[in-house]
Parts: sequence; C-alpha cells; structure tokens
Amino acid sequence: MAITRVLTGITTTGTPHLGNYVGAIRPAIAASRRDGVESFFFLADYHALIKCDDPARIERSRMELAATWLAAGLDPARVTFYRQSDIPEIPELTWLLTCVTAKGQMNRAHAYKAAADANTAAGEDTDAGVTMGLYCYPILMAADILMFNAHQVPVGRDQIQHIEMARDVAQRFNHLFGAASGREFFVLPEAVIEEQVAVLPGLDGRKMSKSYDNTVPLFAGGAKALKEAIARIVTDSKLPGEPKDPDSSALVTLFEAFATPEQAAAFRAELVAGLGWGEAKQRLFELIDAEIAPMRARYEALIAQPAELEALLMAGAAKARATAAPLLAALRDAVGLRRMVAAPVAAAPKAKTEKAALPVFKQYREADGRFYFKLAAADGRVLLQSAAFAGGREAGEWVKRLKTEGSAALAGAPVVPVEGGAAEELAQALDALRAAAAE
Amino acid sequence: MAITRVLTGITTTGTPHLGNYVGAIRPAIAASRRDGVESFFFLADYHALIKCDDPARIERSRMELAATWLAAGLDPARVTFYRQSDIPEIPELTWLLTCVTAKGQMNRAHAYKAAADANTAAGEDTDAGVTMGLYCYPILMAADILMFNAHQVPVGRDQIQHIEMARDVAQRFNHLFGAASGREFFVLPEAVIEEQVAVLPGLDGRKMSKSYDNTVPLFAGGAKALKEAIARIVTDSKLPGEPKDPDSSALVTLFEAFATPEQAAAFRAELVAGLGWGEAKQRLFELIDAEIAPMRARYEALIAQPAELEALLMAGAAKARATAAPLLAALRDAVGLRRMVAAPVAAAPKAKTEKAALPVFKQYREADGRFYFKLAAADGRVLLQSAAFAGGREAGEWVKRLKTEGSAALAGAPVVPVEGGAAEELAQALDALRAAAAE
Repeated sequence: MAITRVLTGITTTGTPHLGNYVGAIRPAIAASRRDGVESFFFLADYHALIKCDDPARIERSRMELAATWLAAGLDPARVTFYRQSDIPEIPELTWLLTCVTAKGQMNRAHAYKAAADANTAAGEDTDAGVTMGLYCYPILMAADILMFNAHQVPVGRDQIQHIEMARDVAQRFNHLFGAASGREFFVLPEAVIEEQVAVLPGLDGRKMSKSYDNTVPLFAGGAKALKEAIARIVTDSKLPGEPKDPDSSALVTLFEAFATPEQAAAFRAELVAGLGWGEAKQRLFELIDAEIAPMRARYEALIAQPAELEALLMAGAAKARATAAPLLAALRDAVGLRRMVAAPVAAAPKAKTEKAALPVFKQYREADGRFYFKLAAADGRVLLQSAAFAGGREAGEWVKRLKTEGSAALAGAPVVPVEGGAAEELAQALDALRAAAAE
Repeated sequence: MAITRVLTGITTTGTPHLGNYVGAIRPAIAASRRDGVESFFFLADYHALIKCDDPARIERSRMELAATWLAAGLDPARVTFYRQSDIPEIPELTWLLTCVTAKGQMNRAHAYKAAADANTAAGEDTDAGVTMGLYCYPILMAADILMFNAHQVPVGRDQIQHIEMARDVAQRFNHLFGAASGREFFVLPEAVIEEQVAVLPGLDGRKMSKSYDNTVPLFAGGAKALKEAIARIVTDSKLPGEPKDPDSSALVTLFEAFATPEQAAAFRAELVAGLGWGEAKQRLFELIDAEIAPMRARYEALIAQPAELEALLMAGAAKARATAAPLLAALRDAVGLRRMVAAPVAAAPKAKTEKAALPVFKQYREADGRFYFKLAAADGRVLLQSAAFAGGREAGEWVKRLKTEGSAALAGAPVVPVEGGAAEELAQALDALRAAAAE
C-alpha cells in the first residue's frame, strides 16, 4: 500500500476553544489514524513571529497548543509532531527556495496583496506597515511542506494559492537542479480542501469565534468554565413542558457534534416533547464533559509538567530531522554546497559478477546502550550512519528495508548521510544492494 | 585593550587574479594580524546561490577561494575562517530578522532598485527576472554581520547602504525585544570604507578585471601562466637602449605593488636609462614570483588534498558556531522560542551574605583527552557547557574571564547554554560570580 504523507501546520497564537476542537483538532487526529497515512504535525512558531512580538504570548501559546493536541489524542509514536523552530533545516531550505522564487509571484500572494490594497485605498504608501515576514512567509510555508515531501496539505480555501506556490517552486528547483541527473528532489504537494469542516456555532448561534466573543472554552477554566459557558447559550424563553423547536438554538447543534445519531434523535424528540432548556443544558454539559474530561486531566498534567512536553517535542524534532537532514544534504549537494573531498573513486557497483564490491551494512551497539547501523562502501568508507535505536530489532528492520527497497526507502529512514559522502554514491550503493537482494 | 571584531565576506564566484590579491586579499590578511583585532572571514556561498545555478561552478569556486586565502597567509588559528553555509544559525537568524524588517526599506536597496529601474526603462514589468534572493539578500547580509556582533565591516562604497540596513534592523530588534530587560543583543556595525584600495592595472592599463579580459592569474596555470600574462603587458615599441617613460605602461605599477620603495625607484631609473621591455618583464616576473611561488605551492597542495581544506573549514565552522550558538539561543529566548521548563526556582543570587548559593564552575577532562568546563547552579543544574579545548590552560583562562567579566564575556566565549537552561538565569549566575569576584 502506498503511503500518503500528510502535513498539518498548527498556528501557535490564541487559546483553542470547542470550535477548534470539533472543526480542526478532532478530525485531523482521526485522519492521522487511518491506514496508509504518515502524518506530520507541527507548531508553526516561526510563522507566529510574523505577527506577534510578545514573547510571553508566543511561549504560552506554544505550550497550550502542544498540550491540547497531545491531550486530544495525537499520538506522537504514530505521527511526527514537532516545533517548526526545532528544525534548523527549515530556515536553510527557505533560503535555497528564496533563491529560485520569482519576486513577481510573491507580489500576487493574497495576504500581501490584501495589505497592499488596503494601504492604497487609504492613500498610504503601498508597503506601509508591511513586514518582510508577511511578504516572504509563503516561501517559509513552501519549505515547511517540501522539507518532508508531503503529498497532501489540508488547508482552507484561502491557503490554496500558497500550496500552488509551493508546487511552483518545487517544480522550478526540480527542473534547475534535478533535470541533468533525472532526479526529482521534491514531490509536488496537493492542497486538500476541507469542504466538510464542521463549523460549530457559538453561544449566540453565529460561528464560534474569538472575534464574536461567543466561544465555549475547550480546557481552560476546567469543567466549571465549560458549564458556565453552556449556561449562557441563547435560547427562547419557553418553559419546561412547552414543546421546543430543536433548531431554534445552537444547543442542539453543539449536542450533535458529540452525540451518536441515536442520542441526537432522542434529544430532539425530548425537546419537542417539552424538555426544559435548563435540563437540556445539563445534558449537553454531561455529554461534552464525558468526552473532554479525560483529555482535560491529561492537558492539565502536561501543562503542570512542561518538561514532559518538552521531551515529547524534542523526540518529535529528532524524528522529523531524521527525514529532513538527508533531504537537505541531497539539496545542498545539488546546488553545489558540497564537502570538499577528493573525487570519489568511481565505483559504480556492477553487482552480479562483482559481489565482493558490494557495500555492507554493519549493525552495532554503542556504549550508550543503544543500537545503530552504518553502511560501508567496499573500500571501507562509511556512506551512511543511522540514528540511535532503543532496540536492535527496529534497527534490523530498517537495514532490511533499505536492502530490499534501495534508495527509495531513504526518504523516510532515520539515517544521516556521513559528512563527505556523496548523496548519489549512497543512492547507487543502496540500489546495488537492492538489485543483489532481488536476484 | 578593547577588541574590535572585523567581519569580511568573500564572494565565491570566479577565480581570483592578481588584482584581487593586491587589492583585497593581501591587505585584509595584513589587517587580520593587527593587535586588538578579532577577524571573521567567511566564504559567502549562500550569497553565491543568488546568481549562480551551476553547482559545479559553486563547488570549484568555493574550493579555489578557500585555498587561495589560506595559501596567501590567512591564519585559521588566529582568525575565524568558515563557510557561511556551515553555520545553520545564520539562516535561522535571517528569519528572525525578516520578521522585523520593513518591506518599504527593502524596496530602496540599491541592487534591487537598479534591476527594477532597468526593467521600467525597458518597458518591462518592474520585477521581471528579479528573484527573491536578489530582493532579500540584504537581510541575509545583516544576519552575517549581526550573528558575530561585528564592530566593523570593510566594504566598498556600494555596500554602505547594506551596513546601514543591518544597523537599522539591529536597532529595531534591540528595541522590540531588549528594551524591557535593558539588554542590547546586537552591536551596531560600522562600515569601514576602503578608500585606499590599491587598484591594480591589467595588461592594457585599465583596471584589472575579468570583464576587460586583461587579468594576470594569481595561482591558476602556475609560473608559466604568470610569465605568459606578463609577456602580454602592453608597452610602446621602444628598443633596448632607448630611454623609456616608466608611466607609459602598467608594468611599473605592477612592479611597485610587489617592490620596496628602493626597488621601485631603481627599476624606474633603469627604464629611463634604457632597460629593454623584455628584460623589464623578466624582472617583474621574478619579483612577483618570489612572493607568489611559495603560496602557489601551498595552494596546489590544498587543491590536491581537499580533505585538508575541508577539515580546516569544519574546524572554522565549529569555532564560529561557538560564538553564534549562544547568541542565537539568547535571541530565541528573547522572541519567545523557549524550551518548556518548569518556571525556574527564582534563585536570584544575593551574593555577599549567601555565598553558598553561588553557581560553581567545574573544569574536567573527558575520555577524548580534551578539556571542558561547565557552570552548575547551586541546585546542581548545569547552566552552561564549554566547547572542547586542546589544553587545560585555555579552558582555565575562559573560566577566569567569565568569572571576572560576567555575562558580558558570553558573546565571544566558546560555550553553549545547556538545553532547557534559560539564557537569563545563565546571565544572572555569571553576573553574580563577577560581583562576588569583585568584592
């Protein structure tokens, strides 16, 4: 089964509310559990710096967002969950992409155009108050996506243009630096439009949004704050016993976002039969709290023990960099930022008749108790070094996969090409092993 | 004596000629040997990517430039000599600066304006053919300079504006993120204008330049190519024995660039007395070759053994990063990209009456035979970790300096704050030690 890599960026400003949970967090986590999907989730904190120069807010928001997603069930063992700012390969890739991006294209980016048009309309200088962060962020976003060769990026309609920009720059880079060798460095990402996003109504029936001041908190303030917010949901003034119109209040829509179809139908029927609004709100609270309470406990534990959060995120960064570092090494090689080494002895492996010349995988255990492997060329030079594994079996499985799938398995493998090693030689060596294994 | 940090960028396109040597390389190396100067020299290979998409040319040129400067006497033990692209802190700082740079300012940058004006004059779209690399590179250049808190940047007149931009962005960052704590993250750099640069004439008497095709090679082609180029210097057709006008040919100016005043005066007198041009060219060759030949031998050895070059540059990168990493850590902390840790036990050292609560420096030797030190808080947490030192004395001198100068000594110190350590706590700890030492 082909693996689809899906990348989701999480903006790190603001405190998440129930609308974010139902509309974004819960469905994204559910999608990450599907078979055949490899998910990357990241806290977009470099992006947060564009609009926010309040360090305390950045710090608090990163922590709240990380704790929220983990508490809501994001499984860091299954997905790759990291902070953007822990991946130094991303700003470096941003510069490589900056060099092949046409300025004319950036002038047409929606976010910039909106700011420029507003300035023009107000009789101001076109670029008044526009920072280079606002102007350049589609390039950073392209780096976010291309760094992990994501196939799919779930976005709202307003972001489609940015995915198209990422495709354009990927194509240009592939063409400029890969055409000669026939290598495609970047997958062309696709926007997946979230047409069916559940838009949760707020207390007043309009879309739940901080700007309307009609939100129900997700974890903040605990069960008490949830209960109080629910008590403020607008209803008509019908008394208990009077038949209610279930569609006359946001209450039923909120209920349906957490209920089974059977529960929802029964709730509607009871309202029509005269269930009082007060009692209905109590039932809504209990329903939501049944789903949220265990998450809230986990959320509060994480916020109280930020060191655990930090460790989880650093582990996520290591996992992400195991993918990012080999790709960046190949890109650096492609543009000419190469280690200065003697021209490698052209040892194009011919396999079959020259089995003795094949490279060799070596597995070993270090003093730190962890397991590693490396790939040595026939002449003894190390071509590839693995990350550390807790167990020898996992290391062995990667060796097996690299042997049988060849260079195609490199993209996702927790390995780093050795300094001075040419990416092309490594790919050839693996493909020679694969050819030998396939005999 | 106060130390002045001087930063020199070396563009990595093209092969250096004798004009580069006399006008740039030789004086910069001489300046790096002055007392009270701490020099940073870097191969500006991220900049090279803006205009060049030929990886082989980038690769060759980086190697030639590195070998040229080292062969010409740049002492990597005395200066910090590195490739820009080996310092991942630079693209990361570029992004932080991008977020606080006004787009309006970039519109006024000379290089961009020249391209835009040419497009307008030609009736093209303003941004036709302009890449984001060309547009954004003053921000990268600001990061190059601010990353090492250089006091002085020797530049030509056309680059003054870029140094002013670096000052502006440094000021803005200091104001936005340092005002509250009274901390100045960045030194404001100054342009040092090279008014007195020796402009060497080429074979035809015009400025020596690749675009005039009138250059004398520095190392390329060996002594033979040097001799052949000198033979092509334009002179009049006076015969041996006829008096010559020493100022009628570039020959004498080239001679003077390598001669003592006495040698130069004698040479002029001989020409007036009738020295033949052929013989004069032979003397010029011998004079230049006497200075260049030992360098050429070293150059050729370096080019033949690129692994030695690579090792020197990697050592330079480690040295540069020992300065860059602690500063970037402080900047990340300032903007809010902080490790998630429990609020540190507020152990604001009160010194004097509570000496027992002071942090402690520990020096030690590792299994690798090298010397290290760390700073431990009173509660045992490690606040700072040093780089490796070959000798214990050097490590000890740094400990002494950190103790006596406090946090002010951090910027240049070969130390890395420990992950999870708050930059502010580290600075406070060092300043407490300084206060204690000053008693």
